[in-house]
Amino acid sequence: MASPHGADPITELITTYNELNSHIITELDEEPSPLEFMRFVAKNTPFVVRGAAANWKATQTWTSKFLTSHLADETVNVAVTPAGNADAPTTYKDGSLVFAKPWEEDQPFPEFLNYVIQQENGQAVDSGEIRYAQTQNDNLRNEYASLFSHVQQDIPFARIALEQESPDAINLWIGNSHSVTALHKDNYENLYVQVLGQKHFVLLPPHCQPCVNEQTLKPMQYHRTQPQKPNDEVLELRPDDNDESGGNGTIPFATWDPDRPLENATAYSYLAEPVRLTLWPGDMLYLPCMWYHKVSQSCFPNDICVAVNYWYDMDFAGPLYPLSNFVRAVNPNSHNR
Amino acid sequence: MASPHGADPITELITTYNELNSHIITELDEEPSPLEFMRFVAKNTPFVVRGAAANWKATQTWTSKFLTSHLADETVNVAVTPAGNADAPTTYKDGSLVFAKPWEEDQPFPEFLNYVIQQENGQAVDSGEIRYAQTQNDNLRNEYASLFSHVQQDIPFARIALEQESPDAINLWIGNSHSVTALHKDNYENLYVQVLGQKHFVLLPPHCQPCVNEQTLKPMQYHRTQPQKPNDEVLELRPDDNDESGGNGTIPFATWDPDRPLENATAYSYLAEPVRLTLWPGDMLYLPCMWYHKVSQSCFPNDICVAVNYWYDMDFAGPLYPLSNFVRAVNPNSHNR
Ligand SMILES: O=C(O)CCC(=O)C(=O)O
Ligand SMILES: O=C(O)CCC(=O)C(=O)O
Repeated sequence: MASPHGADPITELITTYNELNSHIITELDEEPSPLEFMRFVAKNTPFVVRGAAANWKATQTWTSKFLTSHLADETVNVAVTPAGNADAPTTYKDGSLVFAKPWEEDQPFPEFLNYVIQQENGQAVDSGEIRYAQTQNDNLRNEYASLFSHVQQDIPFARIALEQESPDAINLWIGNSHSVTALHKDNYENLYVQVLGQKHFVLLPPHCQPCVNEQTLKPMQYHRTQPQKPNDEVLELRPDDNDESGGNGTIPFATWDPDRPLENATAYSYLAEPVRLTLWPGDMLYLPCMWYHKVSQSCFPNDICVAVNYWYDMDFAGPLYPLSNFVRAVNPNSHNR
Repeated sequence: MASPHGADPITELITTYNELNSHIITELDEEPSPLEFMRFVAKNTPFVVRGAAANWKATQTWTSKFLTSHLADETVNVAVTPAGNADAPTTYKDGSLVFAKPWEEDQPFPEFLNYVIQQENGQAVDSGEIRYAQTQNDNLRNEYASLFSHVQQDIPFARIALEQESPDAINLWIGNSHSVTALHKDNYENLYVQVLGQKHFVLLPPHCQPCVNEQTLKPMQYHRTQPQKPNDEVLELRPDDNDESGGNGTIPFATWDPDRPLENATAYSYLAEPVRLTLWPGDMLYLPCMWYHKVSQSCFPNDICVAVNYWYDMDFAGPLYPLSNFVRAVNPNSHNR
């Protein structure tokens, strides 16, 4: 693995990139033109547009009160976890690290939202469980279709630049500060718009795979149970029934958390220079395809966190996709899978 | 080096890329807009625009007769080699492979051009040496400045997309079918315009470094000598005086020729799927940065080959540059350097 210059190739890859790229995100005052956007796509580099969505109806009118009355009769899918850890590496009772999927259940929207707000306010809530509406299945054009006209139908600069009539998915995220989305990556060009509260992103480029300590985790899912005794768990992790691998454990997932850099670190984690930024209501983030992202949130007092994101298919042509896979294939730590 | 799936990572890299990308070049009927161009830059993928320069004054008016009279009093720098091998891996008399730089000398332009034409016509010429005007030092805005107004000052779609007021270099190439430019790569975005004759390109993307059998070659240069005996060489290879490495041999250079695929092959060469295309007068090629290119040429009867290219600085930000270097660093064959 020694390179011609003697340095380890993975070390050299990460440090060369760091030397040539800033970990301070570019801030734009207005939406880029399609060409300006394409320049960022070309170098697979994020940017944020402050206030891009400040005039959207969603940003102007959505409050928890408005949403409660607007969706008074709706039932929505809610992800339920004991600690806000939907789709996250989680220690199982036998001590092993598993991939925990949330318990999903339908709840009347007003009941869901009331719970989220009460919890954020510090009021006692059933069992302390964390609820997050985050189905990531194009829910804003389906479950929440009645809200869709309050946001843009697409992101015009992205539609034009990427030549995609319509995003692959438009997702609504509603929760409180107890939900955290664990570090992961998606094969999408992502335009992420904050509506209520703040989102805190920690970002790493695709070639940082050797930093994130990817492990093959056994997929498990929380199940809501009827506790027999007072201390019984209400949400119990069980092997995932829908696991296509037949329970063999095939979910490769990052287990390093850039906010706890000394835990679960690899020999390369210390080289990572995460891009950190906070979105305020009306801000828009371009999160390039294949970037690792960890997402947490803060709510304003008595309020909720709401965001909308647009997923556009990434282009698998060109060098980025095969070269990113190559880094994983070469990384010696990928081999214990 | 085995990947998690068992396949060799370099094999997987090259085959994945080949599956997701065509080795048939995209042909455009007209110049792309800056945005369209940026989409090709983003995926580091070549294209050709047939007839893009058909109306340029150069394409309309340059003939060998015109150039001879236009440059009747000029003296130009000429690269002289015994076999058309300027800047090419060449077998030295001790059997070793060296990097041969051409002998460079100033010649009156009419004499140079007459030689090139006579040789192309099959007429006997001094010692059979090959002459090529190919200084690659922005010669069209310097040595050949009187011709510069016959071509575009820049390539507008590239200037706008790449945000560069002016190309880093604009080069004129004048020669005949005996000159071949050996497989190599440049850190430039290259817009290449054919004016007279044909150019034949063989192209490989940057991650094909493991296919090209890069070797560290000792730099040598041809010198014109006064032969003592009839069979003495007129052009003699000598250690390069200007060699900055002090003659230690530091030029890493491709030694595999995609047109002789079984010679000097590596274990990966057979995986390469070169993009092949021929430019006709008026055609424009976008040759993306860091792509390997081998270039040969054919002249029409009694004629010469002339081309003009525009080099724009590449963007070292983003993943391509560090990841391409990573492939070299990981390639076990890079280690005998
Ligand atoms: O907002 C979140 O909690 C996560 C967002 C995310 O992962 C995404 O947009 O892909
Ligand atoms: O035209 C030639 O002979 C070579 C062109 C070339 O190498 C280039 O444009 O970079």
